[in-house]
Amino acid sequence: MIELDLIGIGTGNPDHLTLQAIKALNAADVVVIPRKGNDKADLADLRRDICTSVLSGSTRIVEFDMPVRNPAIADYQERVAAWHAAIAALWAQTIETAVGAQGRVALLIWGDPGLYDSSLRIAAQLDVRINVIPGITSLQALGAAHGIPINDVGAPFLVTTGRQLRDHGWPQGVDTVIVMLDGECSFQHIAPGGISIWWGAYVGMQQEITLSGPLATMAATIMTTRQAARAQHGWIMDIYLMRRTAGPEIA
Amino acid sequence: MIELDLIGIGTGNPDHLTLQAIKALNAADVVVIPRKGNDKADLADLRRDICTSVLSGSTRIVEFDMPVRNPAIADYQERVAAWHAAIAALWAQTIETAVGAQGRVALLIWGDPGLYDSSLRIAAQLDVRINVIPGITSLQALGAAHGIPINDVGAPFLVTTGRQLRDHGWPQGVDTVIVMLDGECSFQHIAPGGISIWWGAYVGMQQEITLSGPLATMAATIMTTRQAARAQHGWIMDIYLMRRTAGPEIA
Ligand SMILES: C[S@@+](CC[C@H](N)C(=O)[O-])C[C@H]1O[C@@H](n2cnc3c(N)ncnc32)[C@H](O)[C@@H]1O
Ligand SMILES: C[S@@+](CC[C@H](N)C(=O)[O-])C[C@H]1O[C@@H](n2cnc3c(N)ncnc32)[C@H](O)[C@@H]1O
Repeated sequence: MIELDLIGIGTGNPDHLTLQAIKALNAADVVVIPRKGNDKADLADLRRDICTSVLSGSTRIVEFDMPVRNPAIADYQERVAAWHAAIAALWAQTIETAVGAQGRVALLIWGDPGLYDSSLRIAAQLDVRINVIPGITSLQALGAAHGIPINDVGAPFLVTTGRQLRDHGWPQGVDTVIVMLDGECSFQHIAPGGISIWWGAYVGMQQEITLSGPLATMAATIMTTRQAARAQHGWIMDIYLMRRTAGPEIA
Repeated sequence: MIELDLIGIGTGNPDHLTLQAIKALNAADVVVIPRKGNDKADLADLRRDICTSVLSGSTRIVEFDMPVRNPAIADYQERVAAWHAAIAALWAQTIETAVGAQGRVALLIWGDPGLYDSSLRIAAQLDVRINVIPGITSLQALGAAHGIPINDVGAPFLVTTGRQLRDHGWPQGVDTVIVMLDGECSFQHIAPGGISIWWGAYVGMQQEITLSGPLATMAATIMTTRQAARAQHGWIMDIYLMRRTAGPEIA
């Protein structure tokens, strides 16, 4: 039987690693690292560095090239399903080559494996036993970077995507909204009155940038900053928390 | 100047500690541990164990007795505000006694300091510089224990409290709801049709209990299990994720 550990590694700060993650990595026969061609955003170097710094035993590192989505498949859902199936097949093949039919294989998952990540769904297509090791999410890294609580006292909060925010506007019944997976600064489509924003890019990493203030005055600054940072680094990951305040906006 | 580190320690598994947390603990002059009388749920022992296992330098440990809420104050908000002020005063005094006017003080925060925790709000009342170190939350520990993704693909999720669920019912516009701070099994007030639940108590700890299935058939089992576990251990912490599925419920 193959044991597959999906190990949350945090969001780019190697010190986000938990002791549990370090133990799981060292207990693995093989760590599998995906490469996405020359795409800097694959952060394969960071994954290699993490392995080098924490592996103390006989764990081997194996790399494989991530398949790309097939643009010939018109339907989005179908395209993603085919892509996930291709990744699952590659994982199976890489695991088979690396350890045969029995062994312990680790995959390093950005942030936490349960948060906007497809690894669990892909792994479910394989005949393996899955263990999940939680990791620091970008949401917590954002809160920590700004030194703010995620929720108001006793109040709910919603975590969503840029697309959902664009399509549905400010969600009903909540005053705190966290937006991930937003390539389009979707906050610009929200009426900014009474809303404050806490934005962060590369949160937890050396390049970390944070900005906060009333959405009305910060939206433009964030968009300019985001564009410049993306141009400078060749890639960007950002996340933000917006809070509707009854009183005056937070400066 | 006093630097106050609010250090997320995860949810009871000492291996949830991050390297960042371990470094911050060792960089502190003093770690302050609150005691709540004979209340087992204060988990002061676990905090002491964590300190013993990771402190390698000259960091000292100081304990203090947590003040209790004043039942003479009728209004809930006022009672909590007075309690927070009392805690802030005690922190200030404990810090002053331990390091004087300058030094680095660490507080161990359950889970992540940003998630349903008042330490950030209490610390804001002191004249200190606050650093937040993110920690594994009970939400991630729950997802990992069940091996489930928190969100559906591209879909939002809401995190809320037992009271909110009781007062407002199933929130609008989301199919995934995570409930924390629920002493009353508030899921029993939800119409269970089409809803699955993943429940966990003491998640990440040795006593961990997990149950999952259709809400309709699991609700009673969870309530019985919770009551028995609480009686056995003298305290309980639990959390659950509910998902509304378009198709058949997940067994
Ligand atoms: C595919 S999701 C993966 C999330 C990850 N599993 C987690 O736990 O944070 C990628 C999104 O996470 C957010 N993200 C991840 N790492 C980040 C970082 N270091 N800084 C800012 N946002 C980040 C961004 O919103 C990005 O679009
Ligand atoms: C005051 S809140 C603190 C949350 C914490 N800051 C975190 O990040 O998880 C306490 C609530 O968290 C949840 N919780 C914390 N630790 C837990 C555990 N080990 N197992 C189950 N639920 C837990 C329960 O819902 C509990 O009522």
